[in-house]
Amino acid sequence: MHKQKLAKESYVQMTELVLPNDTNTLHNLMGGKMMHWMDIVSAIAAQKHSNRIVVTASVDNVSFKKSIKLGNVVTLEAKVTRAFSTSMEVHINVWAEDIPSGTKVMSNEAFFTFVALDQNGKPTTVPEAVPETEEEVRLYDGALRRRQLRLILAGRMKPHDANELKSIFNL
Amino acid sequence: MHKQKLAKESYVQMTELVLPNDTNTLHNLMGGKMMHWMDIVSAIAAQKHSNRIVVTASVDNVSFKKSIKLGNVVTLEAKVTRAFSTSMEVHINVWAEDIPSGTKVMSNEAFFTFVALDQNGKPTTVPEAVPETEEEVRLYDGALRRRQLRLILAGRMKPHDANELKSIFNL
Amino acid sequence: MHKQKLAKESYVQMTELVLPNDTNTLHNLMGGKMMHWMDIVSAIAAQKHSNRIVVTASVDNVSFKKSIKLGNVVTLEAKVTRAFSTSMEVHINVWAEDIPSGTKVMSNEAFFTFVALDQNGKPTTVPEAVPETEEEVRLYDGALRRRQLRLILAGRMKPHDANELKSIFNL
Amino acid sequence: MHKQKLAKESYVQMTELVLPNDTNTLHNLMGGKMMHWMDIVSAIAAQKHSNRIVVTASVDNVSFKKSIKLGNVVTLEAKVTRAFSTSMEVHINVWAEDIPSGTKVMSNEAFFTFVALDQNGKPTTVPEAVPETEEEVRLYDGALRRRQLRLILAGRMKPHDANELKSIFNL
Amino acid sequence: MHKQKLAKESYVQMTELVLPNDTNTLHNLMGGKMMHWMDIVSAIAAQKHSNRIVVTASVDNVSFKKSIKLGNVVTLEAKVTRAFSTSMEVHINVWAEDIPSGTKVMSNEAFFTFVALDQNGKPTTVPEAVPETEEEVRLYDGALRRRQLRLILAGRMKPHDANELKSIFNL
Amino acid sequence: MHKQKLAKESYVQMTELVLPNDTNTLHNLMGGKMMHWMDIVSAIAAQKHSNRIVVTASVDNVSFKKSIKLGNVVTLEAKVTRAFSTSMEVHINVWAEDIPSGTKVMSNEAFFTFVALDQNGKPTTVPEAVPETEEEVRLYDGALRRRQLRLILAGRMKPHDANELKSIFNL
Repeated sequence: MHKQKLAKESYVQMTELVLPNDTNTLHNLMGGKMMHWMDIVSAIAAQKHSNRIVVTASVDNVSFKKSIKLGNVVTLEAKVTRAFSTSMEVHINVWAEDIPSGTKVMSNEAFFTFVALDQNGKPTTVPEAVPETEEEVRLYDGALRRRQLRLILAGRMKPHDANELKSIFNL
Repeated sequence: MHKQKLAKESYVQMTELVLPNDTNTLHNLMGGKMMHWMDIVSAIAAQKHSNRIVVTASVDNVSFKKSIKLGNVVTLEAKVTRAFSTSMEVHINVWAEDIPSGTKVMSNEAFFTFVALDQNGKPTTVPEAVPETEEEVRLYDGALRRRQLRLILAGRMKPHDANELKSIFNL
Repeated sequence: MHKQKLAKESYVQMTELVLPNDTNTLHNLMGGKMMHWMDIVSAIAAQKHSNRIVVTASVDNVSFKKSIKLGNVVTLEAKVTRAFSTSMEVHINVWAEDIPSGTKVMSNEAFFTFVALDQNGKPTTVPEAVPETEEEVRLYDGALRRRQLRLILAGRMKPHDANELKSIFNL
Repeated sequence: MHKQKLAKESYVQMTELVLPNDTNTLHNLMGGKMMHWMDIVSAIAAQKHSNRIVVTASVDNVSFKKSIKLGNVVTLEAKVTRAFSTSMEVHINVWAEDIPSGTKVMSNEAFFTFVALDQNGKPTTVPEAVPETEEEVRLYDGALRRRQLRLILAGRMKPHDANELKSIFNL
Repeated sequence: MHKQKLAKESYVQMTELVLPNDTNTLHNLMGGKMMHWMDIVSAIAAQKHSNRIVVTASVDNVSFKKSIKLGNVVTLEAKVTRAFSTSMEVHINVWAEDIPSGTKVMSNEAFFTFVALDQNGKPTTVPEAVPETEEEVRLYDGALRRRQLRLILAGRMKPHDANELKSIFNL
Repeated sequence: MHKQKLAKESYVQMTELVLPNDTNTLHNLMGGKMMHWMDIVSAIAAQKHSNRIVVTASVDNVSFKKSIKLGNVVTLEAKVTRAFSTSMEVHINVWAEDIPSGTKVMSNEAFFTFVALDQNGKPTTVPEAVPETEEEVRLYDGALRRRQLRLILAGRMKPHDANELKSIFNL
């Protein structure tokens, strides 16, 4: 196994067409369907980084600001930001495009975390993810803070011990 | 429109059977499918509270601790915790049950937020949600703190102004 | 294995949102989709009663009186009414709700029968189902008559021998 | 509109391959999926007879005697047996075939009833269905008896008045 | 194994109802969904001829001349035209029917080729397909020419060697 | 409307995970599902080039050389090669990747043709597609020949008149 892999090697792009069954009675894409696509695209990025079967460990807060309509084209891009022993954080960007009208908007951003499993279904170590671009470095650096927030929210870390996170409240 | 409704009036229970297409190659339920179900059950709870069409505004951090297997029965329960002008926070509990072996485990907990829309697709006010049980009161009280976290994570509030949230870092 | 279980222990509630692909060109829920949901909810009730894998043995006459529209919320409730050696009759009630208009109607009632299978796929005995409420007792009592009708319709009983059933023609 | 049409003009044949998501954990076709297919094939037969949009009015008792496996080919044949003012009874035969082993078995028989609707969604009269073959005549003749049973089961006829049906108890 | 089978023994008819998720924003059936149905119906015809598991080897040029609308009934008919050692060419005819308006049009014609596999997943010989009707003979005769075109397009035959095919350019 | 657009502006990449329902009993991706994905990715490319709703006009011969397994990741890339008045030819490349074993193979190549429609559903002119790279020029040049083959196969051109195509038989 590689000890290290470049973050960009895990890059995945997925394109989906919003079909009737993906929408609510206002003909808007349902949030849950979007989460489903996010989970698949980010799982593939985590698989590419680790060359392992992966399972979703957590989903960070996602907000839905714009409505995406029936017939729109949704583009999702995913890339591993940082690896932690047996887990990987993946960053996802989502665009929605109404092609006939020529409008394309950034619709969502999300972070999913995956655990890599070996042949017996046990967690197994993954390569480090090496950031190169400024954006990749920024995402790599923020990963520690997001991880502390996840651990607190899952009840596995005390707020008091989350030094990285506390710093944003600049106390 | 009612000015107030009891939190419990929005209660919804949904039961799903894990089918092959819901699973990955380890025959475990995929996280994205679970999110899809969570979105539907909580949207129905928000609809029941507001008697309006609703759209997903945000999903709070969700963690996946246990794997759920093909053939398991998944039970989701959703209930509005608190209303904020035109939005509602919904709490979801998820259980997974392997009926032949008689095991049933709590698998996930999540908070989804929805906005109620009027006939023209514009946000519209919803009734207050009145908690009754101890559990409902606890969820009602925590809602402010979770809302501040959401606003910070969406870049719409400065950490410094999040008084409710800061208190958990006991500063 | 338990010798007896309370009917209510098998209770299952399922909630479904009517999506575009569930509807015909009049935007009404198709009967076949409803039967599909009924089969899943009642199979889960039979599984809960027997703690076994179950297979559908028969579906009693179902009538569809009201149309259910796209975007409606469908609630299905299932409970075992009576066990017969290796099979169980399950009763299902279905409601359809148009939440924005606040209308909720009872839309269907049905009886499905399941056979419990052991690890080798052979029929295996199940616990007796013990009715408690007046409604449960009424359903338990009627189960014999419905079973005779099923056997006649399947060509496995002669009408002449169906004493329970004949009584309703009060001859 | 035709006053009469031959029963055989409504004949429809449908072929389906049993895919993973159609099966339970024993890899057997689920009963609800079969009902879904039956509903579609018989609705098309009723449409062909009436040249109208149709909605499912009722499903008669169906029994499932043989298990149908993943990968099997299921053939459904539907034909209108008799018309009653605005409704039509459709007879369905189902075969299951395991092609590599060369086995083909009759797996189910069912009767679905449909109502024809005009452009405003109101019930509208349909042509009489004229039976020709011995089998078609037999199904045509039995339709009255099955209709009485349906009306009794739906609570719309008293058993005492069901002359056709009573005759099978030969009283 | 049979050395020979009649072409007509492989005949399969499939009927599908065009549902919302099968259509684009103009409510027309998407070409890819039609190809999906063609693949299933022709795979079943090839299975029936060979009594083997089969895999798609190639799809010949298909053109889509008429739009098929939501709610239309699509009928597909497939029959093996000719066998070549381990492969079979299947001919497919497709009709689209708007039942309420009483119009039925021939919408597509296609040729799919399948390879038969034995229990180890290796190609295995299939019976010859014997044409009887004039139409079957015409399709049988054209199969050689279509096969040469397929081999050229797949880069496995030089145009110069395609004698059957060259003849249509009558050189 | 633009008179000309670069071929590369229409580029689309789509990534799909092979799920159970996409596979046959050998756990191989079914050809029809692959065609379905090809249709969607190439329709999006044609939409991007024309900023119009598009409908599939034809699919050229596709051959399936390698089996793609359950759990594999399929990547599809589509790009317009050439525009002809109201239609566009799109080229598709498909790769299949077994991530845990680290193997990635080119699995298919295909050409789909689409017609652009205006608001009334009538064919409308599209911009010319301008090739830049050597590969794009090669595909642009071959487009005329493939178009002649399509017209011959659809019975709309006589082989004798297909000068571009005849040249490959070097007569």
